[in-house]
Amino acid sequence: MKVQRQIPQNAFTAGNGFIGRYRRLVKDVVIPYQYGVLEDSIPDTEKSHVIANFINAGKALRGEDTGDGFYGMVFQDSDAAKWIEAAAYSLASYPDKELENTVDRLIDIIADAQDEDGYLNTYFTVKDREKRWTNLLEGHELYCAGHMMEAACAYYEATGKKKLLDVMLKNAEHIYNVFIRDGHKGAPGHPEVELALMKMYRASGDKRCLELARHFIDTRGTDPDYYINEVKSRDWTVWGNNPHDRDYQQSGKPVREQTDATGHAVRAVYLYTGMADLASETGDKELFAACRRLWESITRRRMYVTGGIGSTVIGEAFSVDYDLPSDTAYAETCASIGLMFFASRMLENDVDGEYGDVMERAFYNTVLAGMQLDGKRFFYVNPLEVIPGISGVSPTHRHDLTVRPKWYACACCPPNAARLISSLGKYAYGESGDTAYCHLYADGAVSFENGMKITCETEYPYGFDITYKIESGSGKMAVRIPAWSEKYSVELNGTAADIEVRKGYAYLDAKSGDVVTLRLDGTPYFVHASPKVPELTGRTALCRGPLVYCFEGVDNGGDVISIGIKRNCTAEVSDYDSGLLNGTVKIAVPAVRFGESGGLYCNSPLPETDCTAYAVPYYTWGNRGENRMRVWMTER
Amino acid sequence: MKVQRQIPQNAFTAGNGFIGRYRRLVKDVVIPYQYGVLEDSIPDTEKSHVIANFINAGKALRGEDTGDGFYGMVFQDSDAAKWIEAAAYSLASYPDKELENTVDRLIDIIADAQDEDGYLNTYFTVKDREKRWTNLLEGHELYCAGHMMEAACAYYEATGKKKLLDVMLKNAEHIYNVFIRDGHKGAPGHPEVELALMKMYRASGDKRCLELARHFIDTRGTDPDYYINEVKSRDWTVWGNNPHDRDYQQSGKPVREQTDATGHAVRAVYLYTGMADLASETGDKELFAACRRLWESITRRRMYVTGGIGSTVIGEAFSVDYDLPSDTAYAETCASIGLMFFASRMLENDVDGEYGDVMERAFYNTVLAGMQLDGKRFFYVNPLEVIPGISGVSPTHRHDLTVRPKWYACACCPPNAARLISSLGKYAYGESGDTAYCHLYADGAVSFENGMKITCETEYPYGFDITYKIESGSGKMAVRIPAWSEKYSVELNGTAADIEVRKGYAYLDAKSGDVVTLRLDGTPYFVHASPKVPELTGRTALCRGPLVYCFEGVDNGGDVISIGIKRNCTAEVSDYDSGLLNGTVKIAVPAVRFGESGGLYCNSPLPETDCTAYAVPYYTWGNRGENRMRVWMTER
Repeated sequence: MKVQRQIPQNAFTAGNGFIGRYRRLVKDVVIPYQYGVLEDSIPDTEKSHVIANFINAGKALRGEDTGDGFYGMVFQDSDAAKWIEAAAYSLASYPDKELENTVDRLIDIIADAQDEDGYLNTYFTVKDREKRWTNLLEGHELYCAGHMMEAACAYYEATGKKKLLDVMLKNAEHIYNVFIRDGHKGAPGHPEVELALMKMYRASGDKRCLELARHFIDTRGTDPDYYINEVKSRDWTVWGNNPHDRDYQQSGKPVREQTDATGHAVRAVYLYTGMADLASETGDKELFAACRRLWESITRRRMYVTGGIGSTVIGEAFSVDYDLPSDTAYAETCASIGLMFFASRMLENDVDGEYGDVMERAFYNTVLAGMQLDGKRFFYVNPLEVIPGISGVSPTHRHDLTVRPKWYACACCPPNAARLISSLGKYAYGESGDTAYCHLYADGAVSFENGMKITCETEYPYGFDITYKIESGSGKMAVRIPAWSEKYSVELNGTAADIEVRKGYAYLDAKSGDVVTLRLDGTPYFVHASPKVPELTGRTALCRGPLVYCFEGVDNGGDVISIGIKRNCTAEVSDYDSGLLNGTVKIAVPAVRFGESGGLYCNSPLPETDCTAYAVPYYTWGNRGENRMRVWMTER
Repeated sequence: MKVQRQIPQNAFTAGNGFIGRYRRLVKDVVIPYQYGVLEDSIPDTEKSHVIANFINAGKALRGEDTGDGFYGMVFQDSDAAKWIEAAAYSLASYPDKELENTVDRLIDIIADAQDEDGYLNTYFTVKDREKRWTNLLEGHELYCAGHMMEAACAYYEATGKKKLLDVMLKNAEHIYNVFIRDGHKGAPGHPEVELALMKMYRASGDKRCLELARHFIDTRGTDPDYYINEVKSRDWTVWGNNPHDRDYQQSGKPVREQTDATGHAVRAVYLYTGMADLASETGDKELFAACRRLWESITRRRMYVTGGIGSTVIGEAFSVDYDLPSDTAYAETCASIGLMFFASRMLENDVDGEYGDVMERAFYNTVLAGMQLDGKRFFYVNPLEVIPGISGVSPTHRHDLTVRPKWYACACCPPNAARLISSLGKYAYGESGDTAYCHLYADGAVSFENGMKITCETEYPYGFDITYKIESGSGKMAVRIPAWSEKYSVELNGTAADIEVRKGYAYLDAKSGDVVTLRLDGTPYFVHASPKVPELTGRTALCRGPLVYCFEGVDNGGDVISIGIKRNCTAEVSDYDSGLLNGTVKIAVPAVRFGESGGLYCNSPLPETDCTAYAVPYYTWGNRGENRMRVWMTER
């Protein structure tokens, strides 16, 4: 009943454009590097131990000595799951026997760690089997299960191999038995399994997966005291999470009644993704209406211009409306990845360009900024302003680092970015019976179920012409027109196409041999925030296409906070420089430089000198050493 | 050896001007109200129990049942001490037999709570005598002793009554025995006793007080691991303070080597006050040089325009240089009171106008803002921007309240403000042999030791002429010229006086019958911050005289964050309105109002309409209900 849905992984092959380069970076660098981390073979990096955990869990099940036992976060298993998922997506496009063998070996290890009743979690299997399902608040058992289900579906879709899918179907059956057959109360402290069960349902056709997803979604918040009572009923804790903070895990009221995006941002958007998926799968209009309210709460009032969400470090959480500080921002990489999931599922309920707009805002800015250009270091936190000496140092800015670390003890973001980039085709393209949907502009070849095979060519986000060659087949096309592009045109074989524009999409018919060209506007533009955002009065952000730009010290004589951008100025775009930051375009802006006027506070205006300020895309920041950086510039 | 020093409390009688009105408010409202809190007779207010604690400590000493025991913070005793100190200063100007009897009765109760060896602290006496002196990090025994010493000196100075002074001399002797005779290691976790011992030395002439003050100052930081080892040696804690956070209690290195103002801001400035007092008393130039470095660290890099210090809630502490957020500011009222103490003691080392400038910046803005205009409610935290719905609600803004609460469980600020205002004459006027110093402009009558009796008449901070009538005597006068007054003149009997200006002071000779008039510039002015402060690029703060102004919603159609102040504009001063906010002057400023342009982020400039923005003095904010408030306005 979805109005359209993601294409299968194998239906898209990336070309040589921007997306293709990122996908190959993930294949060549990120996936091998991250596997090295998982097996603890990368020096000077936070220990992972995740593969060892699975091996030791297998030993525990066989009654053997578990050696060095369990190490890491309670949700350590999910790092392996996300890596398998990324590897699977990569294998779908870039066959690699050695990688496939590595995945198969890891799957064997994981299968060995599954209890005979289907339970699968190394933390509880190694440490204390008796504590299973007693700590939904913190235990992450359903979270880890969800990630492994996603991995299983991806690997099955990519390779046709069913071993992990079977393991996870058995695991889903176990969870079904515990929560539905045997009536265990409660919903996951960290949502994730809901969206994963929807994938399992589609991969396997097992209706219990759908039922279980609906069960967890509908159970959530019906007993707002569930976690409080759970804490009372057990004598142990992982971190001492406060069960009274119902907003943190979105458990204060039933999800259908929720109106504000609250709490831990990743939990929130994973939950909303599951809700939106279920709503489109079942045609549940009430549930979709709740999703829509939560979507508006995020995108109208609680989202950074970079698509970052969850503005506060305290709880890695959504704050209140319009509280969007640049320098103390949290804006976790994973949260923006989750926002893309949510947007993509919203598109399955309603084809509206705003979902694609947000998806690309999150992708080209926060998600890509989360990874160093060489694929080897990662940001968890994505501030919109960084001042070495304050950022990472001030008590309120400790989380805002100035350069990307190698890996984190809590390593959710790096493999999450890898799996997102590897599966970008699913977010870029969609389909429903007769129509081929182009949500994002991803260079490469796509096959749709309506029989159309299309090749997309574009230098996007650095070129603004997107050319679709219809290689074979015919049918309807729906191409998103981004809201940021004031001017645009759609051509069919070189002349204006006969299009119908509805909700941000151009609809047209095309057939084999046709060339459809979307021409977008590459003129840089200045964004202004609603005057409801206190932080941003009199500030502006420079953008071009989907890219938010930022100003870094290295391009601006060391400092960017003493710069004011001239109002109503014209920004000048430089040529594409393939040698700069893996290939990018700088933008020059007329500006003034404020000088010192003596002392911390002075009673006269600061001296101002005209200057030119230079900006680079936000996703490239922090790749040239420690540096001042600012997105929202003062206007002058 | 002080180059000049504070006048005795009895030497100043406030007139009918601004300071006099505040002193009478403290006398008529604040002191009776706060006594009601201390004895728990004010309904709907945080319980204090402080008098009961002293009564119960007395019972404990006599081996009687201690009834409801000890209640409150470990430093609860200090609330009584600060109240006695405020009452003493008030009695010096406004004799009041009933109040004096109340104080005497309280002193009797306190004396009864003193152990036979001189120890005095209700927390340890009631709860566990064996734990005395085992927790310098958190125990606040020396802090409470210091406050009671200050109270003893003030009451002795005001009334000549020695009972509390004798109690505290016995207490000082006990502390001397513990730390000097018996060699107990360590320095106070919360500095305060150092500055108090300096007062005790001057009140009593007992050189052991001076020796003890120097001991604590010189001991501090010599063993940076002292608190770490202390924690290891005991099996109990008050709050679990981290002893490794040496910056928090300024214990990382000897004070003479410290260069940055760090840690808990109140601790810091109380320490620096003791250091500056000791330096001037003993002519210790090395110690003064350390004070000067710390002074510069605060006032050049870590102070708000309002004289607020300690910008972060985390540890109620100084952050790093130039980290001065408006909306998440901590800027505790007590810290600005302590900054005034420090400034006043710096003036005793070196008569330099900058100390007076900072003293009045702190007083007229943060200290006065700490108290509601009716004297009944108090701010602990003094943000420079408040947005109801974000302030007090967002996880990072919980401490920034939008209206003043009645009292706090941790009630340091209200009685601290009371004692500061009651003793303002000491900060306003100083003396050394032949010279009468006028640091602040406080309407009233002053007697100096050089024999001069002077009456000061002024409407300051709302009038900018300050007239000094020499009622009798003759001698030198030194009158501070504030740095904010670009133009000024000093007249003697109506014609330009023959003055010498040195370091911000006008020096002149005057004799009985003379009238000296200082004319300052009441033109409003716009302050700009150094471009090193990231928060304040392109912002300006409106000031007039010593008053920083702020913009509140109630004067500006509900909102102030959507306002831009026109650059290089002329602000218009309204007439003094005695009915507005206890009497104040509004300022009107040409401005623009930013409108909505659709959505959270839009690609076009916001619509702007010309408007007039109205400002009121910062110290009056939050007196008209919940309201948006901003000090640093965007320039347009």
